[in-house]
Amino acid sequence: MSPTTALLTDHYELTMLQAALKSGTAHRRSVFELFPRRLPEGRRYGVVAGVGRALDALERFRFDAADLAVLADVVDEPTLAWLADFRFTGDVWGYAEGEAYFPYSPLLVVEASFAEAVLLETLFLSIYNHDSAIASAASRMTLVAGDRPCIEMGSRRTHEEAAVACARAAYIAGFATSSNLAARSRYGVPTAGTSAHSFTLLHDSEEEAFRAQVASLGTGTTLLVDTYDVAEAVRVGVEVAGTGLGAVRLDSGDLGVLAHEVRAELDALGATGTRILVTSDLDEFAIAGLAAAPVDGYGVGTQLVTGSGHPTCGFVYKLVAREDDAGTMVAVAKRSKDKISIGGRKYALRRRDAAGTAEAEVIGIGEAPVDDGDDRSLLVPLVEGGRVVGREPLDAARARHSAALAELPVAVQQMSRGEAVIPTLHVGG
Amino acid sequence: MSPTTALLTDHYELTMLQAALKSGTAHRRSVFELFPRRLPEGRRYGVVAGVGRALDALERFRFDAADLAVLADVVDEPTLAWLADFRFTGDVWGYAEGEAYFPYSPLLVVEASFAEAVLLETLFLSIYNHDSAIASAASRMTLVAGDRPCIEMGSRRTHEEAAVACARAAYIAGFATSSNLAARSRYGVPTAGTSAHSFTLLHDSEEEAFRAQVASLGTGTTLLVDTYDVAEAVRVGVEVAGTGLGAVRLDSGDLGVLAHEVRAELDALGATGTRILVTSDLDEFAIAGLAAAPVDGYGVGTQLVTGSGHPTCGFVYKLVAREDDAGTMVAVAKRSKDKISIGGRKYALRRRDAAGTAEAEVIGIGEAPVDDGDDRSLLVPLVEGGRVVGREPLDAARARHSAALAELPVAVQQMSRGEAVIPTLHVGG
Repeated sequence: MSPTTALLTDHYELTMLQAALKSGTAHRRSVFELFPRRLPEGRRYGVVAGVGRALDALERFRFDAADLAVLADVVDEPTLAWLADFRFTGDVWGYAEGEAYFPYSPLLVVEASFAEAVLLETLFLSIYNHDSAIASAASRMTLVAGDRPCIEMGSRRTHEEAAVACARAAYIAGFATSSNLAARSRYGVPTAGTSAHSFTLLHDSEEEAFRAQVASLGTGTTLLVDTYDVAEAVRVGVEVAGTGLGAVRLDSGDLGVLAHEVRAELDALGATGTRILVTSDLDEFAIAGLAAAPVDGYGVGTQLVTGSGHPTCGFVYKLVAREDDAGTMVAVAKRSKDKISIGGRKYALRRRDAAGTAEAEVIGIGEAPVDDGDDRSLLVPLVEGGRVVGREPLDAARARHSAALAELPVAVQQMSRGEAVIPTLHVGG
Repeated sequence: MSPTTALLTDHYELTMLQAALKSGTAHRRSVFELFPRRLPEGRRYGVVAGVGRALDALERFRFDAADLAVLADVVDEPTLAWLADFRFTGDVWGYAEGEAYFPYSPLLVVEASFAEAVLLETLFLSIYNHDSAIASAASRMTLVAGDRPCIEMGSRRTHEEAAVACARAAYIAGFATSSNLAARSRYGVPTAGTSAHSFTLLHDSEEEAFRAQVASLGTGTTLLVDTYDVAEAVRVGVEVAGTGLGAVRLDSGDLGVLAHEVRAELDALGATGTRILVTSDLDEFAIAGLAAAPVDGYGVGTQLVTGSGHPTCGFVYKLVAREDDAGTMVAVAKRSKDKISIGGRKYALRRRDAAGTAEAEVIGIGEAPVDDGDDRSLLVPLVEGGRVVGREPLDAARARHSAALAELPVAVQQMSRGEAVIPTLHVGG
């Protein structure tokens, strides 16, 4: 693992840099924009995540001697010399972390020389595309779970470093805890977990396993009760831990039916305060389907870390304006048949009615849209002259996610496929 | 980024360890198995990847002072003391990297004390589930692409570290090159790339952009020709670079129709050797659809790094055997309603007919299946007494992938949904 992030990028950014340095255009002041052309099919909103990680990665975006040695076969000497001195000196504005987004929301606006800004394309896209996909899925899960906590436990289903970012993104989007210890270490995400089937199978009987767990972790622990027979395990669990048993976990079978049976059994045994946690390929639809079951918490794995069908966001990073030889900024955009972009620097606000409910995503082309009085500006400074100014505690992003969702129209709570819950309007340009 | 990998794991592994240390069962010799219950829906085979990365990660799986400080709030003092001295001392066998796999293939067999083996669950699953999902998708793409090279360029659509693993897995599965520079640096994956639309838009005209690129990167470069008008761009490209222009890239529109038009134009201009590369949301089906078009190479991004609809493999890591108090190994397995496992240590071979064509995946329970004479044993030693013995060059995995596919029945080439191309047979037990 390199201490720098500069090679977490694509070959062509370096060859473009070389060609632009040689032709004399590399210095041209440029504005790049990171944005989505659409929401994932059927989704009504997206959630911005990865902002803090992108800022961390930017600070480590430099080319050390080992990086330059690798690039010696990729670019020429003048380019290597330029890279050796590279530090990002430009400005970045963006949507704050946890914010909701819609089609064409200008999530990042990067202003710097072409040479500096083009190098950040892949790194910024990787972080934003991944983390926002996870947060967007997580948000639907916590929304439908309501007051019942969601527990992130998908580390094993995704790349080991992506897993850490997933735990972080899920926490921003309202998950209560994660299983991932590196997320606890790096980001302070609360972690939880008790035991797997292997722990029960290690012991000569389920009762011995439960006794071992309770002896070490206390009666407040969560016992996994589906290794053999659920009803018997619940009975033994309460016998071993007493009616103060913290929780039982169900990881297979028809969770809705089982939850009712287990609740009745626990209550009959006097363990009325023992909670029921369910896990097993849950997604937002399964969570919604369990709303009427006596379930006290949801453990979500695979469907969280794979974005519940949408593992990436499709954000792109496009040059939208750059200097000409006279020093004037001109809007630019691809003009061929499909995948059209809108040139010009963008500004954005969320139009709200007098009651504070969001009505539209208003994107100003070349100038800021006018605030009607109840609106909310969306771009905040993240980097000024190369210095990171937009860092904030993770809990601030989590609070922003909650507030941003509360201000959206009530249709945001519909899990069914549909249009974006507010329209995107372009003004100016 | 921590120098150790020990926290890339789940909270519950540590609490299970604590409880087992206290109850005296932690030392029990145990066999864990990493395996798939099924192939992704409709797929006919899977490809094992991540072996080399798992071995690297295992060597860095230790708890340093910073890790232990984090765990001070997770586990008790005796557990912390045990972790401080932790080094894996067990044995691991597994399918070699690049090998094909089928339902229930025992991809990893880990034998160690429960304490040592349980800690590796999440890290091994993360690496195998991710890398094998990517390699499995990549393999279908290179299979259908035939002699035309596939270029991996999906870094921007996935987590920045997952991107590096994707480039590595794609190379194993036959991709010619990647865009990812960190994959070049860490694994020697060949990289390639030339320019994006932003490079064209940076210049005052497409011609100036092409002149800048050719002046710096030579006439063998690949010009991106769909920023404005494709036909005009091809004309200008050949005018600037001459008939020795290396390639043109198409990134939008109807690629099949465009490829025919561009080929005709290039030939008419005398650029008969100029290749046509296509990119734009390609997957194995789109590649198959372009088989009759005059295309010379495929750039694949999103669909590669998201596993073409299957971003994870669903591998699980289960305790299948462990010592009892008398020191005898006993087979164990979960016995509740669904997600049933088969207890007992596994062995595996690929049954082949006299012509060398694979006929079945034969899995021996508790003992090795008998080789009929033309069969091939599948488990190789990866770790002996804690020492990594299974490391090999990446090109060995790439060659194995090619050989493993060549020995499968011809139905493996069908892209349509279907059953595994060979059946899985369990014997013994």
